[in-house]
Amino acid sequence: MTVKEKFNEFKEYLKDISLFESAAILLNWDQQVKMPRGAAHNRADMNSAVQMYAFEQFTSEKNADYLEYFAQPEIAEQLTFEENAMVRVAKGELDKFKVIPKELFARRVKASSLGNHIWEEAREKSDFALFESALKELVEISIETAHIYKEKLYPESNNIYDTLIEQYESGMTTEKLNKIKEVLQPRLTDLIKELAHGTKPDATIFKKKFDVSKQLELSRLISERMGYDYKRGLIDVSVHPFTTKISPDDVRITTRFSESYLEEGLFGTVHETGHALYEQGLPVEFHWTPLAEATSLGIHESQSLFWENMIGKSLPFWKNIKPDLDIIFPEAFNEDIVDIYRAANICNPGFIRIEADEVTYSLHILLRFEIENALINGQISVKELPALWNQKMTEYLGITPENDAQGVLQDVHWSEAMFGYFPSYMLGKLYAAQMYKTMEKEFNIPEAVESGEWLKVREWLKKNIHEMGSIYKPNELIQKVTGEVLNPAYFIEYVEKKFKAIYKL
Amino acid sequence: MTVKEKFNEFKEYLKDISLFESAAILLNWDQQVKMPRGAAHNRADMNSAVQMYAFEQFTSEKNADYLEYFAQPEIAEQLTFEENAMVRVAKGELDKFKVIPKELFARRVKASSLGNHIWEEAREKSDFALFESALKELVEISIETAHIYKEKLYPESNNIYDTLIEQYESGMTTEKLNKIKEVLQPRLTDLIKELAHGTKPDATIFKKKFDVSKQLELSRLISERMGYDYKRGLIDVSVHPFTTKISPDDVRITTRFSESYLEEGLFGTVHETGHALYEQGLPVEFHWTPLAEATSLGIHESQSLFWENMIGKSLPFWKNIKPDLDIIFPEAFNEDIVDIYRAANICNPGFIRIEADEVTYSLHILLRFEIENALINGQISVKELPALWNQKMTEYLGITPENDAQGVLQDVHWSEAMFGYFPSYMLGKLYAAQMYKTMEKEFNIPEAVESGEWLKVREWLKKNIHEMGSIYKPNELIQKVTGEVLNPAYFIEYVEKKFKAIYKL
Repeated sequence: MTVKEKFNEFKEYLKDISLFESAAILLNWDQQVKMPRGAAHNRADMNSAVQMYAFEQFTSEKNADYLEYFAQPEIAEQLTFEENAMVRVAKGELDKFKVIPKELFARRVKASSLGNHIWEEAREKSDFALFESALKELVEISIETAHIYKEKLYPESNNIYDTLIEQYESGMTTEKLNKIKEVLQPRLTDLIKELAHGTKPDATIFKKKFDVSKQLELSRLISERMGYDYKRGLIDVSVHPFTTKISPDDVRITTRFSESYLEEGLFGTVHETGHALYEQGLPVEFHWTPLAEATSLGIHESQSLFWENMIGKSLPFWKNIKPDLDIIFPEAFNEDIVDIYRAANICNPGFIRIEADEVTYSLHILLRFEIENALINGQISVKELPALWNQKMTEYLGITPENDAQGVLQDVHWSEAMFGYFPSYMLGKLYAAQMYKTMEKEFNIPEAVESGEWLKVREWLKKNIHEMGSIYKPNELIQKVTGEVLNPAYFIEYVEKKFKAIYKL
Repeated sequence: MTVKEKFNEFKEYLKDISLFESAAILLNWDQQVKMPRGAAHNRADMNSAVQMYAFEQFTSEKNADYLEYFAQPEIAEQLTFEENAMVRVAKGELDKFKVIPKELFARRVKASSLGNHIWEEAREKSDFALFESALKELVEISIETAHIYKEKLYPESNNIYDTLIEQYESGMTTEKLNKIKEVLQPRLTDLIKELAHGTKPDATIFKKKFDVSKQLELSRLISERMGYDYKRGLIDVSVHPFTTKISPDDVRITTRFSESYLEEGLFGTVHETGHALYEQGLPVEFHWTPLAEATSLGIHESQSLFWENMIGKSLPFWKNIKPDLDIIFPEAFNEDIVDIYRAANICNPGFIRIEADEVTYSLHILLRFEIENALINGQISVKELPALWNQKMTEYLGITPENDAQGVLQDVHWSEAMFGYFPSYMLGKLYAAQMYKTMEKEFNIPEAVESGEWLKVREWLKKNIHEMGSIYKPNELIQKVTGEVLNPAYFIEYVEKKFKAIYKL
């Protein structure tokens, strides 16, 4: 068998595993969007069985043998650049998996499936106690995992929480994040104070009733204009909006709509479509290979936030969609377009992360970052979470949640053991601002957005980010695309300039 | 290890396989209800991978060893009646699987997944040519399968088509069906002619517009009254209505609704709910075991048809739901309740099987039965199907389809290689009429239906049919429940009496 033939065999082997992973992803999508509640326990068993099988195949001797074979220098030099990247990515994943005992993995799969279900109920009833023991199990599993990671993979790390962040944003550390925090937090806090003295946009502009089915119509229109391909995707409704790739030709978005909150559904859709475009933009030759993944969650988030904030919350966007708005919601908007744009960008410290504006959002993340850091390092217990959460909210944003649904229960992540995930949202903002700086050297972005040539933006992101799949690590990619390592100054410059103008300062 | 311990281990082994089968069932449900079209090829791969794995586990040496062990007389006598039934059912299934080569199985899984997708498009465009080559492949696979069955499992069978019928209705044969046809067809043909001289119900009564979302509301109300548990199920919309058990606590119904056709959505829901009650009524101790299946498709169909025809299309049903109808569709029905009931029971030879009335329905089945018999025996080719279909429709029902969507493309079954399935629909009618005769010895059915005590009907069916799972074969079950083997006379008596009254003859 030639090296090429063997490599094709290896790709088939990995594809087969991915097919099971995809089935598990559908089980999860369905659980969040469709599944009847009474089915949770059986679904946890189904999820567990399918994921366990994929796990066993991926961590098999056979896969290890393939990877060892292709990693040999004399073999590697017969492979293409992309093929070598596939080997590297798969090997990196396998190393992470191999160190986790099978029982711990199974425990995590089951606890996540069940935890997610319990969380939904707890959130609905705003009853943290209901979720407490499930969350405790999820935290314990994560701590155990982090200790194993440190011992086996990252012995040099100073903080076991770093090993969890590493899973979502390779190369990022608590130390680096603390440095970003030192720059970002005072500037944002100052900005909030400054804006309080500015001219507040007219909040009543969006305080109207918007028929939910018409909002869905608007969402479809906007996501299509962004370049989302409905032949290879669909939009649905769920408690927590998310994007999921079930297969390369089946990338689904969910949003939540409420009649009195147009912006939630609208920007939610723009955000998730940004994610979906990344997945739909992966090149065909990467499909079902280890490269058919975003290189990191931060980069993934940069795509959703680029669209949501830099495009969706820009004046040219509102100028462009105004005629559509007038057709779908006749007479809803009689105000000046600049005032509508300003109303969509109110800096208003609130309880809910996913409803937060661009100024306060990062503070929501920093709060979670600090809590997770303390939780994983055993400095606080699960029981203390609601009180600590509320205390930090008061400290950072000056507001205290009235109940846990508005506080510690608002996010889905912990219910699925995704500790270390949150920082990527903030990193996404920083990446996005830095990308914008580079993109605007190539064409006039506001002009393109206003005239409806959104595909220009999409094409740039596709060529520079999406089509790279996971060939490059996030720090490599940002350097390659923008010519510079991650620099939070771009975001700070952007957010200060934008909001001072909006508040007429 | 004790026999009991080993049996528990065996049950765990089978449960694990069922979990993968359940995942495959969700993949299929999703494909028909949600999946974007562009995902069909990847979905076929996913389906194939998951089903192949379950197939391999079920046909493994390990499973064969278990079954051989528990089938030994000195071991079997240490097992309960139900445990022995589990072994018998699993062994019967395994014998069927074992004779099918792995390649043929994989070919069928893939051809079905793809075929279903192509059929949907062909049906939409009413273009048989689009579906032809996919169908040819499906027929070839089925013929090959039938020959293997005959050679390996049923050497005594006179007709290879019987071996396919056997998969859905154990013990049924072309010969027996031909005998039923000899009795049934002339009586139905005579009845149609007779009714043509009767007083036709007023068809305009249902020729009104009914808002689709309100129809869904009505469907929910009716299915709940029937005893369907929405905590363990949901109702959705699909091209072809179906019921699917994703897990014991996740039994889903689909219906299709159209504004101008209330009866389709209403009776469709009642029909599918009848199926769903069977699945929801299986006892907990059978869950994830080989007994957690309907004993046959004919018995399954008897449950849906019992509810649809004997209950849903009865006068007491309409008397009972009239007040609800008046709330949901105010002023839609001002006619006399007997006339409404009569209008819901018009004998009207039409093109579409699932829209057919109780008199003509069996003729739709007999047509398919004869075509399948000829197709599987190689007496006709796929190319000839549309012409043959239309010719038989003209002969049996006196009407000729104008296009293939109204004809040969209307049903989903062949697109999934389900040859031998159709007769079970007719058998379901015969079983249902026979069950009704027995049930009415225990309580006054019309009285219970009119007063809304539908759970009485549900409980009887649950106790006598649902809770039996697949402990008994269909012929054993019908004998046990009604004290008699299948006898088409009950259906003939029922349908003649009912329709002559409706047509005032």
